[in-house]
Amino acid sequence: MAGAEWKSLEECLEKHLPLPDLQEVKRVLYGKELRKLDLPREAFEAASREDFELQGYAFEAAEEQLRRPRIVHVGLVQNRIPLPANAPVAEQVSALHRRIKAIVEVAAMCGVNIICFQEAWTMPFAFCTREKLPWTEFAESAEDGPTTRFCQKLAKNHDMVVVSPILERDSEHGDVLWNTAVVISNSGAVLGKTRKNHIPRVGDFNESTYYMEGNLGHPVFQTQFGRIAVNICYGRHHPLNWLMYSINGAEIIFNPSATIGALSESLWPIEARNAAIANHCFTCAINRVGTEHFPNEFTSGDGKKDVFLCSFKAHQDFGYFYGSSYVAAPDSSRTPGLSRSRDGLLVAKLDLNLCQQVNDVWNFKMTGRYEMYARELAEAVKSNYSPTIVKE
Amino acid sequence: MAGAEWKSLEECLEKHLPLPDLQEVKRVLYGKELRKLDLPREAFEAASREDFELQGYAFEAAEEQLRRPRIVHVGLVQNRIPLPANAPVAEQVSALHRRIKAIVEVAAMCGVNIICFQEAWTMPFAFCTREKLPWTEFAESAEDGPTTRFCQKLAKNHDMVVVSPILERDSEHGDVLWNTAVVISNSGAVLGKTRKNHIPRVGDFNESTYYMEGNLGHPVFQTQFGRIAVNICYGRHHPLNWLMYSINGAEIIFNPSATIGALSESLWPIEARNAAIANHCFTCAINRVGTEHFPNEFTSGDGKKDVFLCSFKAHQDFGYFYGSSYVAAPDSSRTPGLSRSRDGLLVAKLDLNLCQQVNDVWNFKMTGRYEMYARELAEAVKSNYSPTIVKE
Repeated sequence: MAGAEWKSLEECLEKHLPLPDLQEVKRVLYGKELRKLDLPREAFEAASREDFELQGYAFEAAEEQLRRPRIVHVGLVQNRIPLPANAPVAEQVSALHRRIKAIVEVAAMCGVNIICFQEAWTMPFAFCTREKLPWTEFAESAEDGPTTRFCQKLAKNHDMVVVSPILERDSEHGDVLWNTAVVISNSGAVLGKTRKNHIPRVGDFNESTYYMEGNLGHPVFQTQFGRIAVNICYGRHHPLNWLMYSINGAEIIFNPSATIGALSESLWPIEARNAAIANHCFTCAINRVGTEHFPNEFTSGDGKKDVFLCSFKAHQDFGYFYGSSYVAAPDSSRTPGLSRSRDGLLVAKLDLNLCQQVNDVWNFKMTGRYEMYARELAEAVKSNYSPTIVKE
Repeated sequence: MAGAEWKSLEECLEKHLPLPDLQEVKRVLYGKELRKLDLPREAFEAASREDFELQGYAFEAAEEQLRRPRIVHVGLVQNRIPLPANAPVAEQVSALHRRIKAIVEVAAMCGVNIICFQEAWTMPFAFCTREKLPWTEFAESAEDGPTTRFCQKLAKNHDMVVVSPILERDSEHGDVLWNTAVVISNSGAVLGKTRKNHIPRVGDFNESTYYMEGNLGHPVFQTQFGRIAVNICYGRHHPLNWLMYSINGAEIIFNPSATIGALSESLWPIEARNAAIANHCFTCAINRVGTEHFPNEFTSGDGKKDVFLCSFKAHQDFGYFYGSSYVAAPDSSRTPGLSRSRDGLLVAKLDLNLCQQVNDVWNFKMTGRYEMYARELAEAVKSNYSPTIVKE
């Protein structure tokens, strides 16, 4: 079962484990237990009316003498595509704008300061098909496309930083497509953009048919609420990608993703959380929900069952996107995941002071020996590199 | 409860969850379920007589046309110190040699090819005390100390590669102490040694009072059964450390550790497993068991309760070592952990072909962009480095 049948790990544990055992399981699996946020009743009512899940948790830090708490509320959005993938492009985009607008309004009621949507949120995740039209029509300018203008309005109306991961068409550089996240300040201004640094060639993830590895390095965005970065999807498998965002000062790294059950569900609780621990920062892992059906059959493989992917037979869907979005903290604690099967908004109240506090306890940067690794990596990529192998 | 009261996560889940839910929990938490090894009855009888836990699991790989399966059995040993820390040094070492000999004999019955003991296995983990005598008396020559000679006999008798993590005294370089793992070939010859690359300064982990960061880089040892490396303890928090062992060709990376419940138990299931995933290799996380009491009171802190560590009051023990040793595979699957409270031997049958198979599916090395990171890291360590921060 890598489909929708099973709602969430946390719901299952809560249901079956006696309280003392549940507490131990949570301690081992999640670190300390987080306090639930007391979100406004009208937010829950609106979420229920709009049929999406709303959860909120607080990460706390120790009191300090010289710094006041640095509180920020982040919002993570996971959703299905509201219209089928064969609906007209413009209608699909409009329906997604409407859906996100409704969720952002609830986020605003909850006091969210920074919100992040899922990867390529304005479209079905159609890169599995390897068809160009109509999917490339979803690509937009990062600077002034309709989705960026839409997000600017949201940002300004709600005094909220918006992280908007889209398929970008860069018409100033030869009409090249990119997998990009646009970061919009709470003032409504476009603060900048960042691109997916690592592109998968795995099973149906045929993304390198559409765009290449990002060329913008590891920018960090100074917002009014803290320094943020965006590690898009497959970049979460690359510890160096997280590290460079952290070295550049990111306190929160968003990881908007699109990933499916049979391939990655047992990696999901591990990677973003390891990144939060290893880099003394918060990470926000976001995955879309549901199964998306495409008009034309496609195949990426050899027609047989595989140990890693559930099937390589010709098919019209990519697999089941299992949601399960969560926030992980530098002290190894984490929120429960959102549902595997419903749209959802996860609100997390972070005290960013926790990053420096954990840094000062664990000292991974101080003990990181980056000079040594810069040297060793520079050697390792040379064509005449000879690995250090000791033989008898 | 970060002490001995709670036996293991897996035992708790097995006991309380209905079968269909248990299967889903295991899928999400552990990837696929592993087959239990059919270990010989006399091995279980001997383990029961010697009062330690014995578990065995098999990791399988797909059949290939050109390569035969590359099967290796690894053994992970976790144990308490058999004598109190205030017993005479020579008696403590002898008692540990006897204990390990008994466990290795059971490993031999199980066909183990490569065995690894816990960090600084010939001594109590006394670095918390900051006293020098008698603890520095446990240091030995890596090349021809009594423990290395003892392990050479074990290796030769049982045709077994032995990884022996000790406190090393390097009398050829100014009598310096190191935290070292000696790798002994199944021929009985000392294949070489490798040193702990990252040294903690965390709570009672006062190890930098005794030894410095290793100076041997990231050697990989070519054994008859596969290429192995040793990432000692705190090095598991450093993704670059794992990466360089992997770039040098390690197929199995052992992580002999000594870590305590209140500090790290929720990090433990994450880090070695993330390393196995990120580097397409097997990792073997080993932790000691129990509470060790020292004759003189010590303190490393400020006498008050702390959010991360349970207590900074003067005390005579370091905290509870929670065992929970496990093996993680490149496909994100893992074994259950050994008990939190008993000595144990974990036997895992690995098909090393899985490493290349997962590499060819996920391609993290191909998509790793190491040239870019070598360049970025080399910049980042410069004193005049200016992080890429985008401001409004």
